[in-house]
Amino acid sequence: AKLQQKKYRKQLQKFLLEGQKPIFEAISSNVKIENIFVTPKLVEKFSSEHSLKDKIILVNDVVMAKIATTESVPEAVAVAQQPVYKIEDFQNFKKIVMLENIKDSGNLGTIIRSAAAFGVDGIVLCGDTTDIFNPKVVRSAVGALYKIPIVKTELSTGKSLFKCHNFIATVVKHDDIKSPKEIDFSQPFVLMFGSEADGLTDEAIGIADMKTTIPMSNLTESLNLSVAASIMFYISVQ
Amino acid sequence: AKLQQKKYRKQLQKFLLEGQKPIFEAISSNVKIENIFVTPKLVEKFSSEHSLKDKIILVNDVVMAKIATTESVPEAVAVAQQPVYKIEDFQNFKKIVMLENIKDSGNLGTIIRSAAAFGVDGIVLCGDTTDIFNPKVVRSAVGALYKIPIVKTELSTGKSLFKCHNFIATVVKHDDIKSPKEIDFSQPFVLMFGSEADGLTDEAIGIADMKTTIPMSNLTESLNLSVAASIMFYISVQ
Repeated sequence: AKLQQKKYRKQLQKFLLEGQKPIFEAISSNVKIENIFVTPKLVEKFSSEHSLKDKIILVNDVVMAKIATTESVPEAVAVAQQPVYKIEDFQNFKKIVMLENIKDSGNLGTIIRSAAAFGVDGIVLCGDTTDIFNPKVVRSAVGALYKIPIVKTELSTGKSLFKCHNFIATVVKHDDIKSPKEIDFSQPFVLMFGSEADGLTDEAIGIADMKTTIPMSNLTESLNLSVAASIMFYISVQ
Repeated sequence: AKLQQKKYRKQLQKFLLEGQKPIFEAISSNVKIENIFVTPKLVEKFSSEHSLKDKIILVNDVVMAKIATTESVPEAVAVAQQPVYKIEDFQNFKKIVMLENIKDSGNLGTIIRSAAAFGVDGIVLCGDTTDIFNPKVVRSAVGALYKIPIVKTELSTGKSLFKCHNFIATVVKHDDIKSPKEIDFSQPFVLMFGSEADGLTDEAIGIADMKTTIPMSNLTESLNLSVAASIMFYISVQ
């Protein structure tokens, strides 16, 4: 239950997987499972998996409700080890997404899901960003969380490490904006997105080699952040 | 406070706008405001708007917390009239989006926001769909709710009314799928999306003239529904 809190997730480098499907998805992506808490109904299903046999802990619905974070109590919750990456692992990645100050867990999870769908190699989190092992991010990412390396670092570290990459800032309004279709996404790139409320910081825009925005009707001011990011990922593979 | 419930919203044809910005956005889109409940802090701001003068009701924070549905209590909540459309109003629309059984309010609001951003003429809701004046939809749509006509109807009514339109079903897997890029979106179309969990019903797929899906890496099974819809809208204007 401690793992519902960020500080314990960080300290123990573990996180929660809630529900049968997320657990099996994580297993098939080689995420290391420490323990699985199951209600009697599902014991057999998990016991038949050889690798899980010694890790199963039988609990009743009351205990399960304490462990789980969702309103509808799942029939299984697993404690899993957080996959750990270093920024140096990213050095040969061609398609990098950098997210600055993203606080909405639903948006973060959805961006991770779309990044995996459109072949992004890795995600770099900068500034004050939600913990990716927050249960809501785990849910919104729908299994994509273990399919794509994610690392936290400083903006400046990223800039000094990715020397051959085009740094692309997505902005709402700015001078000197390129249409996303004019950008050569076959070259290594770092595509940057800021928070839904404030966009990228001046520091992030300052390190960009180019700025871009998604053209849209003047009826609306902006798109949802995870929508804008996903459309940019889609464009990058065309 | 009754308007927090769907049945009263339907009966009274009214809905809630929470927060200063949503209220002013609605006013600028000619949504009719019945009353505005404000805390003392904002009274002056609203009183200075000539058209609102007689509609202001001063309340304290305790009352405001009762009226509002958000955890952080807003400084103003307005009761507004629901804009009402008929399916016949849609007859000359070229770009129509049909949503079937969409129950996630966040997704529905985000789809409405993106539809407005990419020039969709109108949205048709079929089956068991969330009430669009649900406070969460109002929030996720971020002002787009009054910029685009939305109507509820039966699948069959839509099919018989839109005779010149291509009915396009978005599916995850199916025989005989067209790439979205092969579709001629300059012709009138009805673009259909089903629920996140189950996709379109067989009935909806049955009335489609063609089926399409967004090509993606085989790392992920699917995209978030509002993301998939938004990418299709983006493609339709290229």
